[in-house]
Amino acid sequence: MAEITRFNRKQMQESGYLFSVEFAVRDYECDIQGVVNNANYQHYLEHARHEFLISKGISFARLHEEGLDLIVTKVEIEYKNPLKSRDRFIVTVNVHKEGNIRIVFLQEIFRLPDMKLVVRARVTGAAIKKGKPVYPGEVISKLGLE
Amino acid sequence: MAEITRFNRKQMQESGYLFSVEFAVRDYECDIQGVVNNANYQHYLEHARHEFLISKGISFARLHEEGLDLIVTKVEIEYKNPLKSRDRFIVTVNVHKEGNIRIVFLQEIFRLPDMKLVVRARVTGAAIKKGKPVYPGEVISKLGLE
Amino acid sequence: MAEITRFNRKQMQESGYLFSVEFAVRDYECDIQGVVNNANYQHYLEHARHEFLISKGISFARLHEEGLDLIVTKVEIEYKNPLKSRDRFIVTVNVHKEGNIRIVFLQEIFRLPDMKLVVRARVTGAAIKKGKPVYPGEVISKLGLE
Amino acid sequence: MAEITRFNRKQMQESGYLFSVEFAVRDYECDIQGVVNNANYQHYLEHARHEFLISKGISFARLHEEGLDLIVTKVEIEYKNPLKSRDRFIVTVNVHKEGNIRIVFLQEIFRLPDMKLVVRARVTGAAIKKGKPVYPGEVISKLGLE
Repeated sequence: MAEITRFNRKQMQESGYLFSVEFAVRDYECDIQGVVNNANYQHYLEHARHEFLISKGISFARLHEEGLDLIVTKVEIEYKNPLKSRDRFIVTVNVHKEGNIRIVFLQEIFRLPDMKLVVRARVTGAAIKKGKPVYPGEVISKLGLE
Repeated sequence: MAEITRFNRKQMQESGYLFSVEFAVRDYECDIQGVVNNANYQHYLEHARHEFLISKGISFARLHEEGLDLIVTKVEIEYKNPLKSRDRFIVTVNVHKEGNIRIVFLQEIFRLPDMKLVVRARVTGAAIKKGKPVYPGEVISKLGLE
Repeated sequence: MAEITRFNRKQMQESGYLFSVEFAVRDYECDIQGVVNNANYQHYLEHARHEFLISKGISFARLHEEGLDLIVTKVEIEYKNPLKSRDRFIVTVNVHKEGNIRIVFLQEIFRLPDMKLVVRARVTGAAIKKGKPVYPGEVISKLGLE
Repeated sequence: MAEITRFNRKQMQESGYLFSVEFAVRDYECDIQGVVNNANYQHYLEHARHEFLISKGISFARLHEEGLDLIVTKVEIEYKNPLKSRDRFIVTVNVHKEGNIRIVFLQEIFRLPDMKLVVRARVTGAAIKKGKPVYPGEVISKLGLE
């Protein structure tokens, strides 16, 4: 995943992250080892992406009514350091376009207040209409990726 | 919850349980204490109820298309003994009618193979049509509760 | 659960709730029906209780090191109105002592901003030392329940 | 993730998968879209890996007592087709060694009975002793990867 790291660092340096959400770990998200279960980071990442899309005026519900569904086609997550019960953290979101079909989200989770890197992720999304991939013009436009 | 216990024991003695599903604890269902998180027992109970209803030919999806929704209005759970990682267990289901509107599920979870009681629960359900409680005739009939 | 309702209303009127935490529904907490899955309300209630106990200086970790474990022995939840994706809500906590052994939490969930009642719950806890129920003197004292 | 696909297909053709577990989707694992929430596939993959390790005589608990922890350092998941409520499926596990430190699990999820590919995953693990990566000799040996 060298490529992700490179891209992310460059993007971060140039622009900082576009969007972030702050969370705190809840006890029920931790597992026997006393740290957040790996799958729960995916929940955090998803929640931050959805908040980001909504902040850009992109409504899943309205798109769905118009027959357009946004789906995740690939997730890559590097686990760097674990979060523990009650840790506060932020989940960041960056986004870019890949080819004509794919939207790629670069996301990182940093523990607060020391900004230690917890997770680095690359989430690839696509738009589907009647089961076929389509160019999500309105989404691309609202994300400023044209 | 003395009433539940009494009812349950009587019902169990008379008829045994109507239906059961066998599960095994998955590691991600356990929390920091090394036992299944309390909320996850509700998942187990729900899954067993749904399997029971399906076994009786009751389809949520078809009822929903006909405008009828089955909802849970009350849950009472007594925690007797915890389950640990990889424990096998069964979830039982009994059902009776309460008044003209409510369907009450009596459920128990027993650890295998020693049949130690883990959880005893009483789950009250109702049927809703256009936001109002209705008599779920077909459901009552399929459950043999007329 | 008439008793709970009565107690709760009386207690609320006299003292208001002792403690509350604000949440917002995350998409992954909703199920096929588009509303928060019943078990997730139990997660919300647990998180609010833990935050409450910590606000009172009660540390699960330290108690555990001293051999004392706080456990939930019974949960009663009445589901009044569902929460949907992105709804904001508060979870309240009240607490009282029942006999010499049990601590009872009365909790409610209200949707924001209209304060519509979502869930009313009664959660019974006990303290265990070497597998036996004990009088949790320090906890009772810190909760001001002597 | 072209490399994964290639490796996986080759490995599968040569040897079939080493291990598999059968599951059925539970309703609470589905989200608003009526399909299994993306993070839950990670739960399925984790459960199958743990069952695989146990089948090889590798106990997390005993390793932990000896000061050795197995952790996931990277997860890559390609989502090919969604699972719906009550779908049955198998999760497969293959494993190989990468360098001297990393153990790589190649996993796939296939819907039953049509064996449609649902998810393809590559999960990288490492062993940690006192916070430092170490060569997990016993694990490598029990997995037959020497």
